[in-house]
Amino acid sequence: MSRFFSEKYDMLVPYVPGEQPKDMQYVKLNTNESPFPPCEKAAEYACKAAKRLQLYSDPECRDLTKTAAEYFGIDKDEIIFTNGSDEILNFAFMAFCDKNIPAAFPDITYGFYPVFAQLNGVPYEEIPLKDDFSINIEDYFGIEKTVFIANPNAPTGIALSVGEIEQIVKNNPGNVVVIDEAYVDFGAESAVRLIHKYDNLLVVQTYSKSRSMAGARLGFGIGCKELIRDLNTVKYSTNPYNINSMTMAAGIGALEDGEYFRKCCDEIIKNREWTTEQLKKLGFIMTDSSANFVFARHPNVDGKEIYLTLKQKGILVRHFDKERLKQYNRITIGSAEQMRILTEALKEIPGVIK
Amino acid sequence: MSRFFSEKYDMLVPYVPGEQPKDMQYVKLNTNESPFPPCEKAAEYACKAAKRLQLYSDPECRDLTKTAAEYFGIDKDEIIFTNGSDEILNFAFMAFCDKNIPAAFPDITYGFYPVFAQLNGVPYEEIPLKDDFSINIEDYFGIEKTVFIANPNAPTGIALSVGEIEQIVKNNPGNVVVIDEAYVDFGAESAVRLIHKYDNLLVVQTYSKSRSMAGARLGFGIGCKELIRDLNTVKYSTNPYNINSMTMAAGIGALEDGEYFRKCCDEIIKNREWTTEQLKKLGFIMTDSSANFVFARHPNVDGKEIYLTLKQKGILVRHFDKERLKQYNRITIGSAEQMRILTEALKEIPGVIK
Repeated sequence: MSRFFSEKYDMLVPYVPGEQPKDMQYVKLNTNESPFPPCEKAAEYACKAAKRLQLYSDPECRDLTKTAAEYFGIDKDEIIFTNGSDEILNFAFMAFCDKNIPAAFPDITYGFYPVFAQLNGVPYEEIPLKDDFSINIEDYFGIEKTVFIANPNAPTGIALSVGEIEQIVKNNPGNVVVIDEAYVDFGAESAVRLIHKYDNLLVVQTYSKSRSMAGARLGFGIGCKELIRDLNTVKYSTNPYNINSMTMAAGIGALEDGEYFRKCCDEIIKNREWTTEQLKKLGFIMTDSSANFVFARHPNVDGKEIYLTLKQKGILVRHFDKERLKQYNRITIGSAEQMRILTEALKEIPGVIK
Repeated sequence: MSRFFSEKYDMLVPYVPGEQPKDMQYVKLNTNESPFPPCEKAAEYACKAAKRLQLYSDPECRDLTKTAAEYFGIDKDEIIFTNGSDEILNFAFMAFCDKNIPAAFPDITYGFYPVFAQLNGVPYEEIPLKDDFSINIEDYFGIEKTVFIANPNAPTGIALSVGEIEQIVKNNPGNVVVIDEAYVDFGAESAVRLIHKYDNLLVVQTYSKSRSMAGARLGFGIGCKELIRDLNTVKYSTNPYNINSMTMAAGIGALEDGEYFRKCCDEIIKNREWTTEQLKKLGFIMTDSSANFVFARHPNVDGKEIYLTLKQKGILVRHFDKERLKQYNRITIGSAEQMRILTEALKEIPGVIK
């Protein structure tokens, strides 16, 4: 660090994104991207916008907001768009946490939550998952902290029901509960319909997974209008033009083609079921995933060894060094062909049951 | 605000972007956009990227960084890209200011500096410009604060020479000096060549003005590698995928077509000279602008009245209510045709000399 770096960041450990090696062409199953391109309308609208980039994008995202509000059946002032869902998560840490309002989230979840807490000088509690990696919802009742829960959770893929989410929201009337639904479209239920019932619920979603737009950077938050107004205060004090006009246009196109969206999600779910079945035959033990990835360990082979062997074979999966996770790998569900290549490669690893 | 909003933002006054009314088609001279589209390569590369948005953008921006490093004659670890230059400015406030390291900037300058200071809980000093709106560089010597100077300054358009910038940098060895060169390509000199001589200089630029890419959101900072490393620590703790892949691709295209870039800048400079001459004939008093806008008042007509009359006539300019500025309007330099429409409209205002 330079001699000028603020002391407040002395203990800050930045987030480490999934690797993107460029030494060869990998079968990339490490960052939960979609194997399918964005829908044609998304690309077409983005291209049109690319030709008139000389004008600032609309800081209010009026057209996108109108389309999305109709899509989700909410009012225009109940949604805010951000530069990926990481930005809305950071805005939530900024707006609804501080040194007197701590955060709470599972000990095993999206690795960015503790980084956001550290960045913003927010004390936080990491609540242990149960031995089977599930969340004990009662651990989150009345804890007087701003709650962050990924549903389905990552990297486990395990989902809570909307009824369970509602219990957490209802039992924290004095604090905001943020439900991060990055993976919700692959088999879990969204909590969006609860936002008119509870003023302390913020639902976060992203275009990165089910809408095949990770490279466009588009996320959003849905909540009551007072919460959204606070998040806009943060946005207009941070980066009012946070969404570029190509992404904004693509975001409209992606919502207009509901059929393609559904087809992509169905295909991923089908491939997840097939992959789960194959991996079980090979002796793998897995959590019950409702996401576009599986979380798998093998009783005979070390987790890191599986990761390294697959990488050598040109297949990237995500391995975490954390104690409770290190026997596991998180494997993105890709196309049928990618899943076939994966299972063939796993069969070749000594110790895996043929 | 909601009952959950953090008290630390009680006094926060968000930035107000230039208006973007949609009630009619305006001649838009209020946000210093370019009247010219981005170069063809920029749009073409962005379109290609739009078709494969399913993959995350490269958090390291390797291809863009390589192209830009060659373009500016610097090393790859001496530059960082951000989601518009607002983001790099905020990162600089985060990294190089805190409650013990105040910020300092002119009392009349880019309106976002005090917002960033408030957002980050940073005490700040607003140093008055001289009566002629110029900066007295000695006011910034040895002040033991992180200095932010827009060069050319906004909304005045007045530029310091690189020699004067160097004096400020040299006389603040214990603090970072941030030079915000959003408008530098329209007639001022860049301080980039000083970064190898001083470890406390950060130069900020944007693609929004001279490269016709306001809608793409692309800014960057250039400085010694230790400063850039600190800014990357902030970036990787805030939003590692802060640049989408379409913008990243367009950013490469824009640097590759140097000829178009030069032609656009030359045309703006020519139109500024023509407009300045016309406005003088109409009795306007102006600062000596090196930017893509002029800053003008009329001795016989109130500044706000000029703004409102022009708006009625379908021409948007930027008016500021601040005491020292309210007789002035900041008028973006557009195409020759837009400037002709502007001067014709001004001639119709009672009090303006025909």
